[in-house]
Amino acid sequence: MDDWLKRFVPPEILSRKSYTPGFQPKSEGNLVKLNTNENPYPPSPLVANAVLEETKRLHYYPEPTSSNLRKLIAEKHQLEQSQVIIGNGSDDLLNLCVRAFSDSKRSVGMLNPSYSLYPTLTSLQRSSLALIEFSDDQFDLPLEKIISSGINLFFLTNPHAPSGLSFPQAEIAKILNDLEAILVVDEAYADFAEDTSIPLLFEADNLIVTRTFSKSYSLAGSRVGYAVSSPQIIEVLDNVREVYNLDRMSQAAAHAALSDKSYFEDCKAKILNERQKAHTFFTSLGWRTVESQANFIFTEPVTKGGKVGKEVAKSLFEYLEGQNIFVRYFPNHRLTESKIRISIGTKDQMITLIQTIKNWLNENS
Amino acid sequence: MDDWLKRFVPPEILSRKSYTPGFQPKSEGNLVKLNTNENPYPPSPLVANAVLEETKRLHYYPEPTSSNLRKLIAEKHQLEQSQVIIGNGSDDLLNLCVRAFSDSKRSVGMLNPSYSLYPTLTSLQRSSLALIEFSDDQFDLPLEKIISSGINLFFLTNPHAPSGLSFPQAEIAKILNDLEAILVVDEAYADFAEDTSIPLLFEADNLIVTRTFSKSYSLAGSRVGYAVSSPQIIEVLDNVREVYNLDRMSQAAAHAALSDKSYFEDCKAKILNERQKAHTFFTSLGWRTVESQANFIFTEPVTKGGKVGKEVAKSLFEYLEGQNIFVRYFPNHRLTESKIRISIGTKDQMITLIQTIKNWLNENS
Repeated sequence: MDDWLKRFVPPEILSRKSYTPGFQPKSEGNLVKLNTNENPYPPSPLVANAVLEETKRLHYYPEPTSSNLRKLIAEKHQLEQSQVIIGNGSDDLLNLCVRAFSDSKRSVGMLNPSYSLYPTLTSLQRSSLALIEFSDDQFDLPLEKIISSGINLFFLTNPHAPSGLSFPQAEIAKILNDLEAILVVDEAYADFAEDTSIPLLFEADNLIVTRTFSKSYSLAGSRVGYAVSSPQIIEVLDNVREVYNLDRMSQAAAHAALSDKSYFEDCKAKILNERQKAHTFFTSLGWRTVESQANFIFTEPVTKGGKVGKEVAKSLFEYLEGQNIFVRYFPNHRLTESKIRISIGTKDQMITLIQTIKNWLNENS
Repeated sequence: MDDWLKRFVPPEILSRKSYTPGFQPKSEGNLVKLNTNENPYPPSPLVANAVLEETKRLHYYPEPTSSNLRKLIAEKHQLEQSQVIIGNGSDDLLNLCVRAFSDSKRSVGMLNPSYSLYPTLTSLQRSSLALIEFSDDQFDLPLEKIISSGINLFFLTNPHAPSGLSFPQAEIAKILNDLEAILVVDEAYADFAEDTSIPLLFEADNLIVTRTFSKSYSLAGSRVGYAVSSPQIIEVLDNVREVYNLDRMSQAAAHAALSDKSYFEDCKAKILNERQKAHTFFTSLGWRTVESQANFIFTEPVTKGGKVGKEVAKSLFEYLEGQNIFVRYFPNHRLTESKIRISIGTKDQMITLIQTIKNWLNENS
């Protein structure tokens, strides 16, 4: 950065790294995109009509609270409408949590590895951050470390990313009870899991559960997420929220997608079916593969000669990329560097993936 | 707030007030809405088609940089694409400026009154704020006060709100030259003005000009804004930007609206025509009325008996509200308390407004 500019920029901003998302191609035409956990199916056909109707009113500001959507979400989870807030993606809500519940003295905690957006948001707010490491790649919750951490706001991704593993609700209840903090359970992938922390809201006021429409509702391009919590916490988050944080079309799109339950169940069933088949395939190869509760699978590639490790994972990642198949590889952590993360695609995409992996196996000893 | 929650919340958040937008009705059906400076015309017919096309790809994340839109905006202003950044409304960009260029030691400056979102954003970032007062309701720029303020980031709304007045470009150039700070010229209303600070970008690297699609492009409901600056500043703002800050449909809507130049010019001409007629009407009544360069008009109501002041302005505001005509009244500052701000509507809306004001005059002495 030029010197003239440096003196206007706070040091925390000068030194920070911004969040790097997975590769987003300009067009999805000729490639198999299994790198950012998008839904392989387009959204419900109800979405297009709802959006089109809304374009007639685009000269008016959106309804600031997205109240129709709050109402429908409250009904879905059998909560009060005062327990729901809507965000421009769940990322917006994670940012509001950091703004409302942290600063240089009130620290933010997260598991490492988990969602790399948390440190990005924390550095933007100049809040302190505590990274809590797993013991090993079983990804068991390091309960004692969390409870004794002294943090003010804790982000727990469940199902966990990038492993796909689901933490036991009893352990989450223990954190809620024993850690004096605001606990955010980031359930971006919970629609693909058997379990959720939302029932814990009936017992604990210091819990926030965040969800997104990006994965299970096929609306990654529309940027809608929500959080459910106690009415007191929702009030704090509403107070720091950008007043028109969700545009009219996204409000309408999310409402329509949520209303079409059969379409949702149909897409979800197809994804769970492909996930099961992928799991069977990888374990049949002898690759250590997490029993995923998300719409992706995390596996440790092994060559025919029995080699595993960073070079092997990188080799497969690059081989797939060469065949226009995009998956995700995280080389920067010891628990992820020997593995790759694959979003679950359509049946045809998964057939292409599996055939290409077989070719890689044959070409690499 | 409950005591259990208070201890998790930083004191600056506990004590702050959130931004209050103008009244947003659930439906615009039966009222004349002239309170939030929306465009009275729906967006270009090209918008609906562009959005509909995009709904087919909503399961994919948006292109993170909104590059097609950056390109079109760069062409419009004859700038490089590296000089443009897109936001979820220009409010998003104002927030990025606060995040990137202020903290407790690097203060934010603004004129008082001007856009009340600036203090909201500043308090969220726990940055210090300097309010700079006007001498009187001529709203002349208090140049010396600004230049000697020692602030790091200065927000200048031009055309000014709520007055509608346009500050001379020579004075803005003087601020750029003499104030060692980042200057943001918030040109939300500049499409309705004769002048812009964008040419100053060829002389100064510390200038940021923000624009919005909410007013002149009839896209308030879609939340799109942009900023133009030096490539160095754009890089800093991109570094603190939410990576998917603008959804697919809003990118497409803004691109389509910007492409339809004749529709834009047509709507603008109608608004300027109605603004001129409204100005003539208010001055013919003897009401002191700013020569507006925006899509609203700021006027000081006078009763038939010659009374002006807070009670008179409030009385007219409430009378109009009783007739389902919504305008804006700012009772909290000595320079605004005796005036009302009226967004320019359609010809029919303005006829209704003027007739209703005549009725008020006849019913109030």
